[in-house]
Amino acid sequence: MKLMKVTDPDEVLRLIKENFSGLERETLPLESAGGRNLADSLKAPEDVPGFDRSTVDGYAVAARDTFGASEGIPAMLDCIGEILMGQVAPQINNGQCCLVHTGGMLPEGADAVIMVEDTDVTGSTVQVFRQVAPAENVIHRGEDLKEGDIALPEGHKLRAPEIGLLASLGISRVNVYRRPVIGFFSSGDELADHKTRTLNPGQIRDSNAPALLYLAEQYGASVKYGGILPDQFEIFLDKSRAMLEETDLLIFSGGSSVGSRDYTARTMQELGTPGLLVEGISIQPGKPTLLANCNGKPVLGLPGHPVSALNIFSIFGKAIINRLAGSNKDIFKPTVKAILSRNISSQSGRTDYVRIKLEETAEGLKAVPVFGRSGMLRTLAEADGLLIVPAAVEGLSAGEAVEVSIWE
Amino acid sequence: MKLMKVTDPDEVLRLIKENFSGLERETLPLESAGGRNLADSLKAPEDVPGFDRSTVDGYAVAARDTFGASEGIPAMLDCIGEILMGQVAPQINNGQCCLVHTGGMLPEGADAVIMVEDTDVTGSTVQVFRQVAPAENVIHRGEDLKEGDIALPEGHKLRAPEIGLLASLGISRVNVYRRPVIGFFSSGDELADHKTRTLNPGQIRDSNAPALLYLAEQYGASVKYGGILPDQFEIFLDKSRAMLEETDLLIFSGGSSVGSRDYTARTMQELGTPGLLVEGISIQPGKPTLLANCNGKPVLGLPGHPVSALNIFSIFGKAIINRLAGSNKDIFKPTVKAILSRNISSQSGRTDYVRIKLEETAEGLKAVPVFGRSGMLRTLAEADGLLIVPAAVEGLSAGEAVEVSIWE
Repeated sequence: MKLMKVTDPDEVLRLIKENFSGLERETLPLESAGGRNLADSLKAPEDVPGFDRSTVDGYAVAARDTFGASEGIPAMLDCIGEILMGQVAPQINNGQCCLVHTGGMLPEGADAVIMVEDTDVTGSTVQVFRQVAPAENVIHRGEDLKEGDIALPEGHKLRAPEIGLLASLGISRVNVYRRPVIGFFSSGDELADHKTRTLNPGQIRDSNAPALLYLAEQYGASVKYGGILPDQFEIFLDKSRAMLEETDLLIFSGGSSVGSRDYTARTMQELGTPGLLVEGISIQPGKPTLLANCNGKPVLGLPGHPVSALNIFSIFGKAIINRLAGSNKDIFKPTVKAILSRNISSQSGRTDYVRIKLEETAEGLKAVPVFGRSGMLRTLAEADGLLIVPAAVEGLSAGEAVEVSIWE
Repeated sequence: MKLMKVTDPDEVLRLIKENFSGLERETLPLESAGGRNLADSLKAPEDVPGFDRSTVDGYAVAARDTFGASEGIPAMLDCIGEILMGQVAPQINNGQCCLVHTGGMLPEGADAVIMVEDTDVTGSTVQVFRQVAPAENVIHRGEDLKEGDIALPEGHKLRAPEIGLLASLGISRVNVYRRPVIGFFSSGDELADHKTRTLNPGQIRDSNAPALLYLAEQYGASVKYGGILPDQFEIFLDKSRAMLEETDLLIFSGGSSVGSRDYTARTMQELGTPGLLVEGISIQPGKPTLLANCNGKPVLGLPGHPVSALNIFSIFGKAIINRLAGSNKDIFKPTVKAILSRNISSQSGRTDYVRIKLEETAEGLKAVPVFGRSGMLRTLAEADGLLIVPAAVEGLSAGEAVEVSIWE
């Protein structure tokens, strides 16, 4: 038997970065651009904030009018009114102040705000019990962003904070990279569509297609589903070629048969150059994974086993989608900390992903490995996430603190 | 000044769980049910797998035919053919075997599979170089799930693994809790719609509405946006009452003025009983948060500062949406581990959320605090996430390992 040449997971991520890049750009209203990546860097069209603002509830003052003020010898100021929100503040002169709310505009003549707690009021006279420094409790015009400053760089992802930032700048349309379109095939003669009521003996339902289509949309792609390919090379190649023409990325969810895998690899070589980049990954589960660059478009061949397919798609499928979507960021894979409930053995030189169920205990979260063969979906549904055992580690002991990646 | 009564964050989460529950149910095709929570527990309508399957590429054998086999004295078996994927396997008799692929059906008469690597073939004769135990390399019918077993319990979230599991069972329609509808108002006289080109002096654009509307959809809710409420109590109450009637949850994104906050609190008391549950949370940023139960519907009053509003919505807004969506799970907040770049001070008795930028260094990820006042959106967009400093901790030191929650 021919040995599979395996590639390190980090090297696979590097190859994805090196071989592929962002797709075309499009212009969207800000409200529809969440999750997309900027195709241009954006400059602030105006100062933010647009005026000097108070950061507290208090009295706008000239700081010098409070110098020397204390509990014993308060400064006495004349309050000439209240600054209404959204209104222009009146000017204040020597010895005067204005009531101002958090976010309110500072009046001309004022350079600081004294907090309400540090004052006492009788009629229009405000007693100030401490001195404030110039600029105290004030955000100055342009302190957040000055007109012409880069507000966000090209490739930056529009999450909630970015949408807020652009909204505050009055930027209501943005240039972003367009959403990748995935062509998706299942393959393997044992597969039946998942809606099939009664299976023939030896058949199983194609569970990977609906599970991965859902994940692909979660990752920001749209999907054209091409159905189940039979184990016949000509059909395999023709359908794949047609699908790749109208999509940005081809994904094969392999049947478990040797035939499917061979056809996938041969198809990848025929669809374009340079062809196959990866013939296997040193990862468990998910080793028999194929990745190709076919005339600049990525083609990913997933292993057939459900747990392996999900694992590979959530790491490398996501990385490819992010790359095509124009992201300039590496993915930080967030984890939850927990205490391992029992020993786990792992083969050195291979990154292992162990399914974990999290249990709340008096001592904190416990990570309980869910064992079961990689074909068993029930063990996946029982698991909250995955524990990564790095290639250099041979095993983990009960009681160790571990990091669990949560399933999406 | 009246002191704000503050509630511990964990107690707020407990109040949400105690006061609110899942909305009505609806029936959806499996492909549209991703992210929803099951309204019924689901039983397996058939055995999974539906037949005994091989977990490797090899030869299906009767284990007893291999007993005593070794490198030196191989067992000799007669191969009667190949089991095609998706086909019924032929029966084997004493001394016979069948070529089988991973996932293929076991023939009658076979109870184990010997891996290809442990055999050698000449013509139709297979030499077997080691003995296998009964059941070795086989998943038995019903081993994953037996007909009638609970496949998934009520309240379980349909993530990718669950969609795969239900697809494999042929369950193509599911009863789930319906998606919560949020009524969303901004308030504060200083606010202008975010599409406003030119602001009047003292005005700012409403950046919270588009940012939080995006997050609400990410969290699985749909949103009716009611616009910006003026600081006039009668209008405030009338519009809120009308909106609450046609939605499941009301959210006020407060202006920073004292007026907006007062109107929000009074409105919450008038909209229904028992009224206000929370008048403030011992959390930073986000202390001036209001939460009410108005005749069984949650009403959340967010602080006006963008960073505070996002922080509170991503914790408590998400918890309320999850509760109404019928989730039976606590949220595991995933984090990324990093080394703190500098000291952080924090007030004891208050949970602090510090904005963090993550930087890749030779020594691993570094967590760099992004300082800036809570009104500054640029510092938010620069941050990758938040570092939680628990109430019992007074500060953290440079060089400490910390956990950073990633922004969505």
